[in-house]
Amino acid sequence: MNVEVRATHRLFGGTLTYAQHQSAATCTPMRFSVFTPPGEGPFAYLIWLSGLTCTEDNFTGKAGAYGSAAQHGLAIVAPDTSPRGDGVADDPAYDLGQGAGFYVDATQAPWAPHFKMESYVTRDLIETVESAFPLKARRGISGHSMGGHGALTLAMRHPDKFTSVSAFAPISSPTRAPWGEKAFTAYLGSDRESWKPHDAALLIEAGNAKPFDDILIDQGLGDQFLESQLKPELLEGAAAKAGQKITVRRHEGYDHSYFFMTTYIADHVAYHAARLA
Amino acid sequence: MNVEVRATHRLFGGTLTYAQHQSAATCTPMRFSVFTPPGEGPFAYLIWLSGLTCTEDNFTGKAGAYGSAAQHGLAIVAPDTSPRGDGVADDPAYDLGQGAGFYVDATQAPWAPHFKMESYVTRDLIETVESAFPLKARRGISGHSMGGHGALTLAMRHPDKFTSVSAFAPISSPTRAPWGEKAFTAYLGSDRESWKPHDAALLIEAGNAKPFDDILIDQGLGDQFLESQLKPELLEGAAAKAGQKITVRRHEGYDHSYFFMTTYIADHVAYHAARLA
Repeated sequence: MNVEVRATHRLFGGTLTYAQHQSAATCTPMRFSVFTPPGEGPFAYLIWLSGLTCTEDNFTGKAGAYGSAAQHGLAIVAPDTSPRGDGVADDPAYDLGQGAGFYVDATQAPWAPHFKMESYVTRDLIETVESAFPLKARRGISGHSMGGHGALTLAMRHPDKFTSVSAFAPISSPTRAPWGEKAFTAYLGSDRESWKPHDAALLIEAGNAKPFDDILIDQGLGDQFLESQLKPELLEGAAAKAGQKITVRRHEGYDHSYFFMTTYIADHVAYHAARLA
Repeated sequence: MNVEVRATHRLFGGTLTYAQHQSAATCTPMRFSVFTPPGEGPFAYLIWLSGLTCTEDNFTGKAGAYGSAAQHGLAIVAPDTSPRGDGVADDPAYDLGQGAGFYVDATQAPWAPHFKMESYVTRDLIETVESAFPLKARRGISGHSMGGHGALTLAMRHPDKFTSVSAFAPISSPTRAPWGEKAFTAYLGSDRESWKPHDAALLIEAGNAKPFDDILIDQGLGDQFLESQLKPELLEGAAAKAGQKITVRRHEGYDHSYFFMTTYIADHVAYHAARLA
């Protein structure tokens, strides 16, 4: 795999690498970061999917995850949230187009040529990081908001690829949330049937979470998007119907920001490390 | 004191407040952040001074200090690095003017009307945060690079105001570093005698660090500014002459970024908490 290293930083005895590679799925260069803990590896790793407007550079600086990752010997890979560039379709809104790939493979114009984030994450990214860094094929997946939706749906759609899954403030059921309805209409078309395989609550209800012993979800109760977009109760209802264990922790006063995530990220690192050991 | 709260976030059981107030020293609105740990207080606190180009919003998101501050019951106050605004002098360079106040009171045109960062931090900021937040007059001070210079010099110039002092990658002797020579020429004038009272190494050599039992300094050996601008050996030489204890820790491979600071910030929080208890 052809990986161009853009920058490296030492932290907590490990190394954070910002890199770029050409993706066959998106037909664009894609940027990502890889934290490797102290030691030689190969390391199990967590893929982190960021939320709307983020790049590969938000989680790295703001989440405060690497101290606990170093302690647990866990690597963390964080990709960008969409293809980017002058030849890539975009929309002026923050919740569509570049920075808002929603971790699906678009089928509709003008998005289909490049917006293939499901294939990118589950194939190109994994192949590249496992060939270019000391990582082993032992993976967890987590993310925030749009990235929480991505983590839940990619885990359930590709259970052979992921051993553990968690999320912060995920869009629990994008078919029943304005962000999801807008993005899925654009990327997947107006036929709502095509949306259902990308809806975490519906996937849980259909039994697709069975490969996972638990799903850890943290949600702030001061989150401005809680009732309109996130709706964790839909995950709980689906899990109850399917007999699936999920753990939704609600936190009084916490909002949708990285300040919420940094408070609980060590719990997620430990959760994944225990399952990937 | 008239404090305008701009935003609050809950994290680690405490609260981060972004605020703004009118400073008599700078004759401008000044922005700052205050983290208060869980509980009622009043809390001892650490003033954090940021480096070149930073605002009141870099430390908050990137340093990863608040988890350990919450554990220790320590508050943290982080001001902006200069006055700002349309009526405030500026320079196109990153290392002069807005974002580069150097924590001195300027005496020279065009800077003198607003660039009074020493008076701002040691008088206006302290008075405001202690009246508007549950803080007590028990203070440590730390900072990074230009802010490390600020922490060291403000502590030694105002030992009645600060009980503990530390720094990350400080400009150890601005009279012998290009950043400092440029800024001091602009703010203090071309008479180098006027610079000496704002040079940490010279202050230590003159015995001004005596009120402090120790000074903790962390420095990355992969820091691109180490030899040209930072020169921690000048602090060590001065301390040896003065019989002053300082602790300079050098870290192989670490650079000048927040990734270096986040690795060791918990040590600084513990260092100050122990002395402010």
